[in-house]
Amino acid sequence: MKSYLDMTGEELLAERSTLLKRYEEYKDKKLSLDLSRGKPSAEQLDTVSDMLTCLTSDDLKTLDGDYRNYGLLSGIKEAKKLFSDLFSIPEKYIFVGGNSSLNLMYDSVARAMMFGVYGSERPWGKEEKVKFICPVPGYDRHFGVTERLGVEMVNVNMTDSGPDMDAVEALVKDDASVKGIWCCPKYSNPDGYTYSDDTVRRLASMECAAKDFRIFWDNAYAVHDIYEDRKDTLLDIFAECEKAGTVDRVFYFASTSKISYPGAGVAILACSENNLAQILPIVGTQTIGYDKVNQLRHVKYFKNAENILAHMKELAKLIRPKFELSKEILERELEGSGAARVTDPKGGYFISVYTYNGCAKRAYALCKEAGVTLTSVGATYPYRNDPDDSNIRLAPTYPRIEDLSLAVEILAVCIKLAVSEALLAKKK
Amino acid sequence: MKSYLDMTGEELLAERSTLLKRYEEYKDKKLSLDLSRGKPSAEQLDTVSDMLTCLTSDDLKTLDGDYRNYGLLSGIKEAKKLFSDLFSIPEKYIFVGGNSSLNLMYDSVARAMMFGVYGSERPWGKEEKVKFICPVPGYDRHFGVTERLGVEMVNVNMTDSGPDMDAVEALVKDDASVKGIWCCPKYSNPDGYTYSDDTVRRLASMECAAKDFRIFWDNAYAVHDIYEDRKDTLLDIFAECEKAGTVDRVFYFASTSKISYPGAGVAILACSENNLAQILPIVGTQTIGYDKVNQLRHVKYFKNAENILAHMKELAKLIRPKFELSKEILERELEGSGAARVTDPKGGYFISVYTYNGCAKRAYALCKEAGVTLTSVGATYPYRNDPDDSNIRLAPTYPRIEDLSLAVEILAVCIKLAVSEALLAKKK
Repeated sequence: MKSYLDMTGEELLAERSTLLKRYEEYKDKKLSLDLSRGKPSAEQLDTVSDMLTCLTSDDLKTLDGDYRNYGLLSGIKEAKKLFSDLFSIPEKYIFVGGNSSLNLMYDSVARAMMFGVYGSERPWGKEEKVKFICPVPGYDRHFGVTERLGVEMVNVNMTDSGPDMDAVEALVKDDASVKGIWCCPKYSNPDGYTYSDDTVRRLASMECAAKDFRIFWDNAYAVHDIYEDRKDTLLDIFAECEKAGTVDRVFYFASTSKISYPGAGVAILACSENNLAQILPIVGTQTIGYDKVNQLRHVKYFKNAENILAHMKELAKLIRPKFELSKEILERELEGSGAARVTDPKGGYFISVYTYNGCAKRAYALCKEAGVTLTSVGATYPYRNDPDDSNIRLAPTYPRIEDLSLAVEILAVCIKLAVSEALLAKKK
Repeated sequence: MKSYLDMTGEELLAERSTLLKRYEEYKDKKLSLDLSRGKPSAEQLDTVSDMLTCLTSDDLKTLDGDYRNYGLLSGIKEAKKLFSDLFSIPEKYIFVGGNSSLNLMYDSVARAMMFGVYGSERPWGKEEKVKFICPVPGYDRHFGVTERLGVEMVNVNMTDSGPDMDAVEALVKDDASVKGIWCCPKYSNPDGYTYSDDTVRRLASMECAAKDFRIFWDNAYAVHDIYEDRKDTLLDIFAECEKAGTVDRVFYFASTSKISYPGAGVAILACSENNLAQILPIVGTQTIGYDKVNQLRHVKYFKNAENILAHMKELAKLIRPKFELSKEILERELEGSGAARVTDPKGGYFISVYTYNGCAKRAYALCKEAGVTLTSVGATYPYRNDPDDSNIRLAPTYPRIEDLSLAVEILAVCIKLAVSEALLAKKK
């Protein structure tokens, strides 16, 4: 395909007219398709149906106590063992929370604002200003937490090896108000990038002006490979921090939301013993304990980490065709056009599409008019502001494959329409 | 029994020597008994075992969405209906949260501190001072939340018709820093008192200097009657507030922790639409949603409010003998002695024992030495400080009945020992 950027005005007009014809045909179908939601499909959820009925009262009467009753604030030991094996985290670092890692993250930032973290001189909320580094694009709900809690967000660009570490290091080095960084280190949301070993090492060892700096390590897609043969590996952040003498720097989050059930899974926070010693007494005033029945339900169903990894391969079989189809269509429609570039994730839940600058909002509006809902453009940036108006997040897992096919095709056409319009406007 | 208060020094010495003999016999048994924990017994928990396996995947695929997936922040409509019927609260007021009403309370106070409540001029945390009225004795974990979050607690005495309302009205009338009151309005923790109609009406209609005053209405024992024939009724706080034009004043909490499973039940916050409109967007940054699977599990198992009430009668059959036995022993040992008075709850989880002033700590220590663990003396007061050193909370539900019998007997002996000691010391 000839690049739109190299086309003459006439060529662009001709291209645009072809695209408009296709666009009108789509519109005539009166579609209602949704590419916005990073949710498992019903087929994925069907794979764990037996979990719902696998647990009985007798299982819950354990030597460690009656798990049906109050107690065990930091979680049951069987769940700690399971997550320790699955994520290669020391058991003693693991706190098993409720159903939502996002809730554990919100609570962690809120707690830091109200009480500080281990090593803080005062509550973060008593500082003149608190800033978080936000690799962009990123996860809208991370940014929602910090925006809500009054933390100023500073953009740093993502690359295919993680956040621009020169920029990160420069920010943390001299500015003690920079207290944290949001990281989705493996199969990042929305790009699907995995932090390189060098990135992880630099995060672990960088010098921070704020002695109570924290890495919010949201390893949401730790075991969410899509392919059998190609997969990313992520360096062990705790091991690297231990080497660097910075182990108190990490708040590690993960959950089974996209392993078992979104909303009915189990989430963990893992952090050093110093951190846990500061956190647990506060959590102990917040709740008597989280749902140990659901914790044991997960342990009994999966039994061990190997079985979870085998289960993830089954899920990958359902997800892979959707990613492959999406990329195939985007490649066919966009390759060489200069209208957009597309990421090629080996895992996770998203594909990022970067339109020619200044065209994402327009493409979104065109999609909407044709009945295709995308993640709000800008949502992948703090304050919902994509300075380049370029990033569009695709979530291929939830729709049926027929719907997905049509929706992605329409998206590609809308992007090309938006870009051809923009280029034509420039030529005027 | 002759009152200790009327005994001569010699009579007291004789009594004390008899008591000491009994006490040494108990000590020789090398017991380890626990009266401290307000927990259901294993037998109670066994009654709902079928709940664990009652739900299947098909149940969760509803017309209102796939409850296995993300969504429905404020809870599923089936659960709202169930709790609306059970607690006589308008469905539109109900927010179904996670497993812990305490967590909803902590979050509500924390949110108020960080953001204020509906009608606040500023976050409570930005006020010079925030005070809560704490009816005493009360629930230690309520006091833990406000202590942790920097709220100053002001004691008001409980009576058998609720908090001393003259004192409450005087406190809220002129002092705008008084922002809230902790209430356990039915079968109160630890006394087992239920607020009278007049108390509820006065709470609903009292004039508050703080326009954003909130009643934290923890109706933890709403349906937890112990007897078939004698039960308390609690006036509908929302109805009374609606009449008084103060419906925004109430945060209503309840849970199934002592209906189904402690820690694996379902908790609710109910409040006016103005309050929900202020709260839900904040909760929406905290989590994508609570565990809808467990919500539907409860709905499918219980089906309707009538069945829950029938279930509570079954639980009462297990609890009643423990309360009756405890009261029988306490009466036999203490009546007329002047050493202590004992409350006579018709529901809930606790009995309060008030020793002769200044003797609770000593009785606690004597119990401990004899292998009987009580709730820490003072815990039922803010800052763990019972100014009279008098209140001891008994939790009869958890121990086996044989253990309970012995433990309560030992408690009574220890109280008498402590009081006789104190009176003898006075005579010196």
